[in-house]
Amino acid sequence: MSSEELSIGSYIVRRLEEQRVGSMFGVPGSFIANFLDIVEASKISWVGECNELTAAYAADGYARYKGELGVLATTVGVGELSAINGIAGSFAEELPILHIVGQQKTKDQDEGLNIIHTLGNGRYDEFAKSALPYTCSQYLLNKTDINLGVADIKIDKVIVDCISQSRPAYLALPWDLVDVKITTTRLYEPLKKEEVLINADAEKAAIEHIYRRFEDAFEGELVNNVVVIADVSISRHHCKKEVAAFLEATQLPVYGTPLGKTAVNETSDRYGGIYVGDLSSPDVKKSVENAKLVLFIGPLNTDFNTGNFSYKISDDKSIKLHFDHTEVGFATYARTGMKELLPKLTDRLKDFTEKARQLDVPEFRNEDVDDEDEPINHAWLWWRVGGWFIEDDLIITEAGSVSYGVIDLALPKGSSLLAQKLWASIGWSTGATHGATLARRELEGDKAPQTILFIGDGSLQMTVQALSAMMRSKVKPIIFVVKNGGYTIERLQHSIDAEYHNIVTWDYGKLLSVLNNVEEPTPTKTYQVSNQQELGKLFDSGEFRNNGCLQLVEIIVSRDDAPPALKRALHIQDNAVESDSGLETWAPHRIKMGGSAPVRMIGW
Amino acid sequence: MSSEELSIGSYIVRRLEEQRVGSMFGVPGSFIANFLDIVEASKISWVGECNELTAAYAADGYARYKGELGVLATTVGVGELSAINGIAGSFAEELPILHIVGQQKTKDQDEGLNIIHTLGNGRYDEFAKSALPYTCSQYLLNKTDINLGVADIKIDKVIVDCISQSRPAYLALPWDLVDVKITTTRLYEPLKKEEVLINADAEKAAIEHIYRRFEDAFEGELVNNVVVIADVSISRHHCKKEVAAFLEATQLPVYGTPLGKTAVNETSDRYGGIYVGDLSSPDVKKSVENAKLVLFIGPLNTDFNTGNFSYKISDDKSIKLHFDHTEVGFATYARTGMKELLPKLTDRLKDFTEKARQLDVPEFRNEDVDDEDEPINHAWLWWRVGGWFIEDDLIITEAGSVSYGVIDLALPKGSSLLAQKLWASIGWSTGATHGATLARRELEGDKAPQTILFIGDGSLQMTVQALSAMMRSKVKPIIFVVKNGGYTIERLQHSIDAEYHNIVTWDYGKLLSVLNNVEEPTPTKTYQVSNQQELGKLFDSGEFRNNGCLQLVEIIVSRDDAPPALKRALHIQDNAVESDSGLETWAPHRIKMGGSAPVRMIGW
Repeated sequence: MSSEELSIGSYIVRRLEEQRVGSMFGVPGSFIANFLDIVEASKISWVGECNELTAAYAADGYARYKGELGVLATTVGVGELSAINGIAGSFAEELPILHIVGQQKTKDQDEGLNIIHTLGNGRYDEFAKSALPYTCSQYLLNKTDINLGVADIKIDKVIVDCISQSRPAYLALPWDLVDVKITTTRLYEPLKKEEVLINADAEKAAIEHIYRRFEDAFEGELVNNVVVIADVSISRHHCKKEVAAFLEATQLPVYGTPLGKTAVNETSDRYGGIYVGDLSSPDVKKSVENAKLVLFIGPLNTDFNTGNFSYKISDDKSIKLHFDHTEVGFATYARTGMKELLPKLTDRLKDFTEKARQLDVPEFRNEDVDDEDEPINHAWLWWRVGGWFIEDDLIITEAGSVSYGVIDLALPKGSSLLAQKLWASIGWSTGATHGATLARRELEGDKAPQTILFIGDGSLQMTVQALSAMMRSKVKPIIFVVKNGGYTIERLQHSIDAEYHNIVTWDYGKLLSVLNNVEEPTPTKTYQVSNQQELGKLFDSGEFRNNGCLQLVEIIVSRDDAPPALKRALHIQDNAVESDSGLETWAPHRIKMGGSAPVRMIGW
Repeated sequence: MSSEELSIGSYIVRRLEEQRVGSMFGVPGSFIANFLDIVEASKISWVGECNELTAAYAADGYARYKGELGVLATTVGVGELSAINGIAGSFAEELPILHIVGQQKTKDQDEGLNIIHTLGNGRYDEFAKSALPYTCSQYLLNKTDINLGVADIKIDKVIVDCISQSRPAYLALPWDLVDVKITTTRLYEPLKKEEVLINADAEKAAIEHIYRRFEDAFEGELVNNVVVIADVSISRHHCKKEVAAFLEATQLPVYGTPLGKTAVNETSDRYGGIYVGDLSSPDVKKSVENAKLVLFIGPLNTDFNTGNFSYKISDDKSIKLHFDHTEVGFATYARTGMKELLPKLTDRLKDFTEKARQLDVPEFRNEDVDDEDEPINHAWLWWRVGGWFIEDDLIITEAGSVSYGVIDLALPKGSSLLAQKLWASIGWSTGATHGATLARRELEGDKAPQTILFIGDGSLQMTVQALSAMMRSKVKPIIFVVKNGGYTIERLQHSIDAEYHNIVTWDYGKLLSVLNNVEEPTPTKTYQVSNQQELGKLFDSGEFRNNGCLQLVEIIVSRDDAPPALKRALHIQDNAVESDSGLETWAPHRIKMGGSAPVRMIGW
């Protein structure tokens, strides 16, 4: 590459190509068009969504599956604000999304004119400010920087911040500056993620400290010695391989968490299920809480992840490996990160492997269920689904009630589960499925294993147009729409019969054909099942998995039914759907502990 | 009403009922449910939309048609941020929308817990901050205010600010405070809009100043004396009656503006068409720009409204009546408002009526067109539509290319045109139509005249789920979907053949039946027309207007066709669709003046 001049728009696109961005998501609008001309001429595919929110969700799903940069492009004001909820979700859940915003000409901005997509008050600077809480870095391209010859440096910085901090970043491009030429000198050097600066001495001290704690814990008889809790930051910080090697070498008993599903192999006989505080199965709760030492890898404390903050593990007996620091009991070791530390720790702890191998692990496996000539209910559904999953499936669950469906399952080796469970914006999963399937196709080709989405009807109605965009992209997920006529997770929490929880029932059987391109339809298949044997038959046919087209399966369940894990979380007794007596003063998602114990404890 | 205790939620609902709020729009979510229980038990109808953005648009349309308070209710974070683009549009276009946000419990907020719908960083205060630029007032309910006994005062203030400033306001309700009891003492006194404080002496001086300018202008021969330009703030500030009385009494020649359509009666023989700077018809341009004195009522300078700031009227010969001040030449009279001033001015200027009556006004009327056995094109379409409109029609146009369709038409007496043309967020009009038709039904009953929406296919795909919500509400607009396969207004501005402008063609014929409630479908009718005689036949059948159900008419036009007014604005010669030569350096919506004059000047 020789040092030449290049337009700023082209410079940015070259940087994105360099970061292996294969798809860019968005909606064209007045002030982004000249940048999109450059994208259209590049190696990056433009993926036009029907609206900006689904585009933001798609960029999230793309980055979430790929573990790399996702890019969203919108016009100013109307476009970017439509996407901001998606960006906030990517911030909450640590995804590197670069949001490129095409703005009005600098001259119009300087004059404060009342032109299209303005507030009518001359304030052109408000939109970037609105995005501040949800972005780790912002750069608003301007003439001064171009004149000073530093625009390239600042563009590079916003991209590096985005990938290094794994959070959304904001890049504004005024219309008249996109085609301004700058030198390409900096393109000689590819942009690199800034890794955590490791202090080798601190790392060594932390490892020795952990070693001593293991020595103490493994003294005496081989019961309740050490357990590992593998959590979501393993996936977020791309340490699955390091963790798998650690577990293989040490043979320690390992437990998951709701958010940490698929961070480790759940079919291993060293895997004992998920620990979720007071909502854990008695076996798991006992094993974890009685352990002398608990090694947390990548922990994240949220209500959903911790059984509403009901962990019973003292700090004193905890070791916590984070991406940028390590805690051993009450000692914190800064500048030590799990990705670098784990291989060394694996090596250091090999003395304990023989003992660890002898530690008991509760059995954790999916229950076999028969397909009866009965209506589908959640208690049957999820076990049946669990038996149908195969290795390397990509499973995506919407934030609503279906997200509880897979919690009880041992998910297959190599599978991935994507779910947005802290931000929990319903409607996220349609766009995210589009983005994730495109990422998968980029990485693994058209023969990539199946992507499977579970979504409720209320969530689907939020962002239904993403189905159209998926058909346009010819991606081929299997989409299960759980139809129960409303916002079930809300309904079960508060005022179960309130009219506001209800939605109308669409004709899901014809939905794909209506949102397809009538001029050149993408092949699809649609099914409706309400009986266990109907769905069982579908699962048992080899074709269903390999139809090579997008498929939608409408699963009809009764209004107030829910996955067992959700019922347990809400203290709902099976066959008696009603909230507990503390209803009136009970806030959503703050599960009231105490009171009657959950009746069903299937699977844990 | 005796002074009793009432929950804060009920207090708010009572205030909203008092403000004649008949419908509240939103989506139920975790933290708004206990407030919605109170709404459900009140006189206010809860209107659940499929997502928060269409809910915000619906509240906008409701307030825009009714001229009164609209209310939106969402959950925190995910819900409110999904709606923020709609709120920003209501801010830009001066609509009083109260956005009620249900938040997490105060205790959880104080502790900064990572619970659902948070950013994971303990910052619960970011969302309200994001809304600051788009709200005129905010109140975050809190325990301190309740303990101090001032929560009612502050709730009242945020509502009064909202209706007085006619801008969105933000009211946050933590879950645990909704049911806290407060006294009802303040409910004795209904809330009132704070009117502009009028300085009677200043008003008198302004009227005398205007009188003297009229005296000067009417000296000499009766040509080019005085013209009125009636603009959009007349509608926004509810002065249509005062303006109609003024025009009737003074008989002055009056012109409209693109945003000011339907502010005055366009079928009056004193109405001469619209003035839009260099894009005006030669007759109008000459009459307005040669006038000795131009009286602007409720002017608003935006690119769309002023032919891209190409007015040729000096300040010296301008009089401008605003809602809160008056300009006469270079003199500004503060604390004078058009609503109060106009009746007095009407009286004071009666000396000039006889002279004004003699002033010529260019003829402005719709062109009659024949229905040929030809494809529908925009040049034919809008005249045909114009001939079909009748008195009191409510016409709503999406912000895209269709918004230019009605500009050339003389709209019938009593008709209203709603369009969001400064903020111009495509997709707005589906939700807005839902809200506006509900407002109309509240005010005028089920026999209210027809509501007619024009929307392009790209815009419809943004917010298609609003159709489902409309069917659920059993409102009965006629919806014309102009199908041209893409974002036409963008396409005609830049890179006409770019792939990113394209969308796929849905099966609009089946769209309503798919989004309808399959369990109990609302009656609807759907049509597809591509030939002039097909649409003409529909228009000529009396039934079409009176079918008593929601109707969707798909109008197929060619990809690059556009309403004549849009082609003129873009300097596109008819039958030769290409942008002008200044394309590369030409920013969207900044129309390049000079160069070849528009070829078609139909209607002006």
